[in-house]
Amino acid sequence: MTNFLPKSIRTLIEEFSRLPGVGPKSAQRLAMHLLRSPRDKIESLGQAVTGLKDDIVFCETCWNIAEKNPCYVCDNPSRDKSLICVVEEILDAVAIEKMGEFSGVYHVLHGRLSPVDGIGPDQLKIVELVKRIENGSKDDGEFSEGKSYKINEVILATNPSLEGEATALYIQKALIGFDVKVTRIARGLPVGGDVEYADEITLMRAMKGRGDF
Amino acid sequence: MTNFLPKSIRTLIEEFSRLPGVGPKSAQRLAMHLLRSPRDKIESLGQAVTGLKDDIVFCETCWNIAEKNPCYVCDNPSRDKSLICVVEEILDAVAIEKMGEFSGVYHVLHGRLSPVDGIGPDQLKIVELVKRIENGSKDDGEFSEGKSYKINEVILATNPSLEGEATALYIQKALIGFDVKVTRIARGLPVGGDVEYADEITLMRAMKGRGDF
Repeated sequence: MTNFLPKSIRTLIEEFSRLPGVGPKSAQRLAMHLLRSPRDKIESLGQAVTGLKDDIVFCETCWNIAEKNPCYVCDNPSRDKSLICVVEEILDAVAIEKMGEFSGVYHVLHGRLSPVDGIGPDQLKIVELVKRIENGSKDDGEFSEGKSYKINEVILATNPSLEGEATALYIQKALIGFDVKVTRIARGLPVGGDVEYADEITLMRAMKGRGDF
Repeated sequence: MTNFLPKSIRTLIEEFSRLPGVGPKSAQRLAMHLLRSPRDKIESLGQAVTGLKDDIVFCETCWNIAEKNPCYVCDNPSRDKSLICVVEEILDAVAIEKMGEFSGVYHVLHGRLSPVDGIGPDQLKIVELVKRIENGSKDDGEFSEGKSYKINEVILATNPSLEGEATALYIQKALIGFDVKVTRIARGLPVGGDVEYADEITLMRAMKGRGDF
């Protein structure tokens, strides 16, 4: 088997199978698919991979990745700077942005508290969040270019998992004393879900969080 | 959404989602995984993709891909050149080779007959197979370097699908008149399978192909 396929293909299969969610069989199929593709398609994928980190910076306001600092969202005058949505990962912000209903700005923590994995508050962008709100609090209410904005509300949109909840709780405590409303995204039954099949904790949350009809 | 992620990431997500079996969500995750990877890991994947077609040739005997022509298998003196296993795709040969029990050589058709997709015998390496056997038939029985070998048996290992069976049948007919035994891999219940859940055609095949106990 070792030499049955040419080395360049074996290398690619190996590289592909290192990616998350790609098993050895999928890696083989991906490699074979590329082998059948025209050379320019292969090159464009290769270049997209190699050039991934080109021109990427962190926005030093919301810590999302961006082409410039501040990022497209933080720099957008039509976004509501007084409303910050705190998320664990970049892709969480992508999902919320896709919804198209959120007009505030983001704060990406880049992870969640996880003592098991040795992830404490210092590994996340929590200090930066507190500072952001602190600077906002000092604001005299007048909006002007290059200034910090008064932050009215922080929505904690970390995952409704054990670690996500702990992270939300930690941030909530860290923000005590600031003149800012701290909220948490609702936990309940997903739309299209089924009461019968919902787990007990979700059901409990859905009951607790019930609203007027 | 359009500008929410930096261009280099959007490009990579787009490239990834063009791959078979990779949806937009997986493409996003793969891109984010790479973004968190060290630069040298990213480069090695990029180079593996770009260099995929380097040093790859077709073996003009068995039409497998190889680093040289003839390939590692066709050039191996310990392989039985009188036994040819005909497969649809390279990965089929890889699977058979992995088994480690086949000592013959291969012939890769690069597809299967499929009138719906416009794939006829001319698009496959069938003429090459017939020529290979024809040359082998002319052999005077003496084995020497650089010569064609007398081919005793052709195992048709195309898929047990409608198209694979049609392809096998076509080849079998094309080889009538040559002094060569044409066989077909057994179709029956997969080992570990269940009679109860087997489909009717598989069961029928398993009964028809029954052997002495």
